[in-house]
Amino acid sequence: MPSDMLDQVFTKIDQLSQHFITDRLAKAVEIQSVSSDLTIEGRHKVDQMTAFLETQLKGLGATVKRYPLGNQQDTHPVLKLPDVIIAKYPATPDPNKRTILIYGHYDVQPEGKGWTHPAWRLTEVNGKLYGRGSTDDKGPVLAWLNALEAYQEAEVDVPVNLLFCFEGMEETGSVGFSKFAQKNKELFSKVEAACISDNYWLTSRKPCLTYGLRGINYFTITIAQKPLPGRTPVPLHSGIYGGTVHEPMTELVIMLSKLADSKGNILVPGINGLVDNVTSEEIAQYQKIDFSMEEFNKTIGSDAAIYTTAQDTLTHRWRYPSITIHGINGADPSEKQTTAIYPTVTGKFSVRTVPTMEGKAVKALVEHYLDQEFKKLGSKNTCKVEQLGDPAPYWVGNTKDSNFAAGSAATKRVYSTEPDLTREGGSIGVTLDIQNALGPEKSIMLLPVGRSDDGAHGPDEKLDRENYIKGSKLLGAYWWYFANH
Amino acid sequence: MPSDMLDQVFTKIDQLSQHFITDRLAKAVEIQSVSSDLTIEGRHKVDQMTAFLETQLKGLGATVKRYPLGNQQDTHPVLKLPDVIIAKYPATPDPNKRTILIYGHYDVQPEGKGWTHPAWRLTEVNGKLYGRGSTDDKGPVLAWLNALEAYQEAEVDVPVNLLFCFEGMEETGSVGFSKFAQKNKELFSKVEAACISDNYWLTSRKPCLTYGLRGINYFTITIAQKPLPGRTPVPLHSGIYGGTVHEPMTELVIMLSKLADSKGNILVPGINGLVDNVTSEEIAQYQKIDFSMEEFNKTIGSDAAIYTTAQDTLTHRWRYPSITIHGINGADPSEKQTTAIYPTVTGKFSVRTVPTMEGKAVKALVEHYLDQEFKKLGSKNTCKVEQLGDPAPYWVGNTKDSNFAAGSAATKRVYSTEPDLTREGGSIGVTLDIQNALGPEKSIMLLPVGRSDDGAHGPDEKLDRENYIKGSKLLGAYWWYFANH
Repeated sequence: MPSDMLDQVFTKIDQLSQHFITDRLAKAVEIQSVSSDLTIEGRHKVDQMTAFLETQLKGLGATVKRYPLGNQQDTHPVLKLPDVIIAKYPATPDPNKRTILIYGHYDVQPEGKGWTHPAWRLTEVNGKLYGRGSTDDKGPVLAWLNALEAYQEAEVDVPVNLLFCFEGMEETGSVGFSKFAQKNKELFSKVEAACISDNYWLTSRKPCLTYGLRGINYFTITIAQKPLPGRTPVPLHSGIYGGTVHEPMTELVIMLSKLADSKGNILVPGINGLVDNVTSEEIAQYQKIDFSMEEFNKTIGSDAAIYTTAQDTLTHRWRYPSITIHGINGADPSEKQTTAIYPTVTGKFSVRTVPTMEGKAVKALVEHYLDQEFKKLGSKNTCKVEQLGDPAPYWVGNTKDSNFAAGSAATKRVYSTEPDLTREGGSIGVTLDIQNALGPEKSIMLLPVGRSDDGAHGPDEKLDRENYIKGSKLLGAYWWYFANH
Repeated sequence: MPSDMLDQVFTKIDQLSQHFITDRLAKAVEIQSVSSDLTIEGRHKVDQMTAFLETQLKGLGATVKRYPLGNQQDTHPVLKLPDVIIAKYPATPDPNKRTILIYGHYDVQPEGKGWTHPAWRLTEVNGKLYGRGSTDDKGPVLAWLNALEAYQEAEVDVPVNLLFCFEGMEETGSVGFSKFAQKNKELFSKVEAACISDNYWLTSRKPCLTYGLRGINYFTITIAQKPLPGRTPVPLHSGIYGGTVHEPMTELVIMLSKLADSKGNILVPGINGLVDNVTSEEIAQYQKIDFSMEEFNKTIGSDAAIYTTAQDTLTHRWRYPSITIHGINGADPSEKQTTAIYPTVTGKFSVRTVPTMEGKAVKALVEHYLDQEFKKLGSKNTCKVEQLGDPAPYWVGNTKDSNFAAGSAATKRVYSTEPDLTREGGSIGVTLDIQNALGPEKSIMLLPVGRSDDGAHGPDEKLDRENYIKGSKLLGAYWWYFANH
């Protein structure tokens, strides 16, 4: 097929752009599909968004099937989890076309504080479309639909079989999704590659393809006074008991101080030995990436950067592990001048993992080290290290496969520039769920639509009009180049 | 005056005991005078208690004057502080009698959780009078009034001039009391000695006189990312930023880990050098005290005691300083699996002080040490150590003066035993306020009515009927022996 047919699709996208905003994105933003709202009304709004998407997909001729995930655990009132939407286009897959799996999510973060624009009414100011979910992830989800509509309106045959998979719990840890993906592997049997559009450009200027994620092991460490038989230790008055009992909080800060230093070096023996050496190829790649310390500093808002070069900063974000202490439970977090010794305190910390730090090995090293260090204290208290949930493994894709080639060609076509190849320092659990469902040999690519400054979870979340419209072209072009590899 | 006149007072106290419970303590417990309740209704209940006490005192022929303390700061709604009650008995002091200042407080702790008896209805079970304020401090305050009534009913002349000083904000830091005491020094010009009944026996068995308190310096240490001009650092995603920025929480736990070790040893250089040596006389005194590790362990409910002997434990409670870390503000105290790097975190800790650790010296040592230690980290973040409020100084009374002699003689008369001479590990701010108002040469004694197991601030607070009745005798006998020293 001649590639100028893509121009017809692009022209149609330009013609339909106001329709895509007014009748699609604006309507979706108005639906407050906050998955962390655990009220009946809140969940009802998420369900409204499921219905909205279903209607939109059916309107474009896709077959839609909903997959119920059962009830959410431990909520009062009892809440049904939002359905996973599986949509096929065309309704009967063409055996001569390659099949692509497209993942997105239709739930959003709560409104939160600090908005200067309405959170739930899409508002365009200076080419920016403000509203909750505009960039995360309603905009990208609807950009896929825009592309499909444009193909149809331009009367250009969609060159791939599309399998859409949209969930409604991503912002709340994708509850139920992993199980769904495992149980329904046969749904994905024909899939050749998957594409997730749920992250952002590394900057506000340059498009990118994302091929790697760090994993995460999340730990708690609890120091507790050992109860006497039939007794429950209570907070003690520090005047009366200070100096006469082993204080859990004193011991907890000692233990937590042994995890990392101020420069971010991990002090747990053995961890750094698990990290693959950074290759000269990678260094060369990182040097080419359009990223500056000025914008890094601007994003963090403070003078807290450890490294002075973009390359060092990116290497430590993407290619090295890190440890963060997130907080302490059981002590007094208030600003008040309180004076208790607390009997049980729990520190929370996470380890971001990179190849080839397997979750089990990390767990064993952390537990062993903290165990040894606690013994050195000679305390009568107890120390318990626990891993919360299963670790999310690191993920690295193959940037040399046809999936990435298609993403790259599409970017060049739409943005007239070679995309940067980026990783994310964070973890996107569904990527692994999808990889597991597809099998290790299938390619996944993260293809972001929005920019680094979109403010995904914060106030004044936005998607640039340009990114929404060019993003619709990008996703449509990706199909094209994937089919014509 | 023959001392068997005291027997007539005691007989009257026994005869009036049910009246003291039903018409005095039970009525007082029903008034929910919770000073930390910052509602109009809550404060109204404290005022009701002021009125109750005023009526009681006037009924016994005392002159009562109320001292308003102005409005409480920073409350919404605006709340008037409860009045201080100053009552004189007799109305015109007898120049031939010595004058005693008696301090107590008529406010109580909130109900809190876990009661198995009603909190606001005095309930007697197995000789124990359960109810909020029964032992802290309504029981002791009313025991003074019981003693006065018994002298009158027995037609025995009260041998001292009484100056009662009752406040209604003690449980909320005695807001306004220090200023009141400073401003009204002339009220106390005739006072020869003061007695405070607002603490407890060291055990549940043996009466004591209390002659010492530890002081307290309360600090915060704040680690913050330095804002760029015009920016406010926000919580950062640990996936994206972990390993690339100086993390305040990592640095805070390092700093806090430098304060004390697991055995309670203070690591701040210079602090231990300020501590007076424990004398052999003190050691001998501590060895005599009726206190066991069994009951210590039972009270703390856990196997966290550092020392194995009662003497070592008491020495570290009373005669050595301690450091406790109370909590961290600004990080995530929840049990949730959250993943932020917080830009500003504050640790709270306090130093309990003993002779001769002056507050200013402690402050200087702590600040200098933490400043030096933070510099070693080589961080770009800032570290600020602040002292909250003025330090409460340590206090030590003179157990060899006539005030303590009177307390000792009264104890022997009522309980047929020599009282133990105890200190408290905690700090009672009003003791210092009163010492300042009286001048350093005047004696203050703490003369407790209740037992160690009364559970002052917890659920099922109680005062033994025996302690209430014998306590009324004890306080009346104290007057007697103070007059006849």
